[in-house]
Amino acid sequence: MKKFINSTNDLVQDSAAGLVMAHEDLLALNESPLFICRRTPKQGRVALISGGGSGHEPLHTGYVGPGMLDAACPGQVFTAPTPDQIVAAAQRVDAGQGVLMVVKNYGGDCASFQVASDMLEIECATVLVNDDVAVEHSTHTTGRRGVAGTLIVEKMIGAACEAGADLYECKALGARVNANTASMGVALTSCTVPDAGAATFDIGPSEIEIGVGIHGEPGRHRRALMPADDIVTLLLEPVLKDLALAAGRQVLLHVNGFGGTPLIELHLLNRIATQRLRDAGLQVKRWLVGNHTTSLEMAGASLTLTALDDELLGLWDAPVTTPSLRW
Amino acid sequence: MKKFINSTNDLVQDSAAGLVMAHEDLLALNESPLFICRRTPKQGRVALISGGGSGHEPLHTGYVGPGMLDAACPGQVFTAPTPDQIVAAAQRVDAGQGVLMVVKNYGGDCASFQVASDMLEIECATVLVNDDVAVEHSTHTTGRRGVAGTLIVEKMIGAACEAGADLYECKALGARVNANTASMGVALTSCTVPDAGAATFDIGPSEIEIGVGIHGEPGRHRRALMPADDIVTLLLEPVLKDLALAAGRQVLLHVNGFGGTPLIELHLLNRIATQRLRDAGLQVKRWLVGNHTTSLEMAGASLTLTALDDELLGLWDAPVTTPSLRW
Repeated sequence: MKKFINSTNDLVQDSAAGLVMAHEDLLALNESPLFICRRTPKQGRVALISGGGSGHEPLHTGYVGPGMLDAACPGQVFTAPTPDQIVAAAQRVDAGQGVLMVVKNYGGDCASFQVASDMLEIECATVLVNDDVAVEHSTHTTGRRGVAGTLIVEKMIGAACEAGADLYECKALGARVNANTASMGVALTSCTVPDAGAATFDIGPSEIEIGVGIHGEPGRHRRALMPADDIVTLLLEPVLKDLALAAGRQVLLHVNGFGGTPLIELHLLNRIATQRLRDAGLQVKRWLVGNHTTSLEMAGASLTLTALDDELLGLWDAPVTTPSLRW
Repeated sequence: MKKFINSTNDLVQDSAAGLVMAHEDLLALNESPLFICRRTPKQGRVALISGGGSGHEPLHTGYVGPGMLDAACPGQVFTAPTPDQIVAAAQRVDAGQGVLMVVKNYGGDCASFQVASDMLEIECATVLVNDDVAVEHSTHTTGRRGVAGTLIVEKMIGAACEAGADLYECKALGARVNANTASMGVALTSCTVPDAGAATFDIGPSEIEIGVGIHGEPGRHRRALMPADDIVTLLLEPVLKDLALAAGRQVLLHVNGFGGTPLIELHLLNRIATQRLRDAGLQVKRWLVGNHTTSLEMAGASLTLTALDDELLGLWDAPVTTPSLRW
């Protein structure tokens, strides 16, 4: 296992500290229980928090800041955060208007956020993200998984919180963004969880895994390596089928790398996917291309589409100031 | 070779098109000869251009925009751009105040920019970047190589251009930033150049290459894999020796990934390096952590320090709006 690491015990804690050091103007670290929150708290607005297993960075810790999350709770690698992290984060960022929790649809995450909600005396609500169209059931979750669409949900709700929407408006918005978002991914290589010390799954030198999850969960098909054009076809077809968009519809396209994919390849995928969507009669209005929801050092990528209307477009365009999303 | 690719012939061109599609508000594409420039030209200021082999993205194309470059010329992978690309880019962005070229110190890049300067009837000047302290001579260059410090030079000169400094002030500034900047890198894995189809160098499963260049050039030592603490020591020592900074000096720390290194590891390196610099009596005032100057999908990282004064700090903090650096 070749990684920059001292001890698997300290990796998550030390890495969170390194992130906060690099953004000391923006972020604060709570060491125990571990969470990252804004340095300057938001006042009189719904607080937005999220969290999940580490190893998907910048999700979620890289999206804390004005216009997006108030706090993020990193679990151990590919492991849900504990309820005490979530409780402490919610108590810290609550500003009297309730706390909205964005949760990816995995059993461990759902359980931790549910227990935390039950423990909190603050008014709480949850948005469940399940944008992955690859499989209905996986080894990590019942129902569809939450993957790269999560940051789109977090960005749009974050803008609504900032604008003063109330807790149930923000929750309804999150559900609406999630329903308008679909993703599908492909892995070229596996990743290695530090504690395991070995690849999560075996994949041959000429194989790719279509429909892979962000923890290396098996996908729909194991195929032979093929040109990027054909990979885009296999990813976009189920996404478009799921969203069933009318011609002329406006969309946001998110080309996400899984951590080990260079930008030169992600931009190539973007060119192909954008052209393909235009050929299908859709209007691609916004783009996000980069390694945003990762699986450690996995080589691979996912395509996410969100159907836009004027409200969602405005929420996407609203200012955001976080380590990994800023405009 | 597992990559998202259609044909090695079209990769650079199509990837550049994909980048510009994702940033159509900011960037324009010139297909032949290939360069990327700002969509809205700067007026009455020194124009700043750069370029080099592809495969280092986001360097340089990801740094085109207000506050930084006016244009970037991507060559084929790890191959210098041709003089006609540079000539066309310079002619496009010249605003009557001359064109400053930021060139990494590699033979091919130096030759192409020199030929282009000779061909142009515009007033031109060059800033040579050679921040890599690992080796004096490498297989790709005579003298020290230009690596991750390049974007710091580009950022600071970009701010000065925007503020109205003249061509020779900008050139002198670039030389000063370069002289105050030092970098050293380490590779955990090799990368594969698409045209070659095989790893650039062999490295064992428990070996690391200390002092590697951004094209996989051999470094100072081949060592056994060691804890991150010890790797930071081996990178920081030659950087600090080169800059010979007095205690109390302010510095910018740039922790750069080579493309295949996850953020969780880069933030860990940042925590270790920041603490180490503080222990050495330096004031770390600014940070940049991420995969910025890459070697395709190579796993590895470099540490770059720039000694700051009030002027350089102000230039670093000045607004910038590019695909990959924005504040």
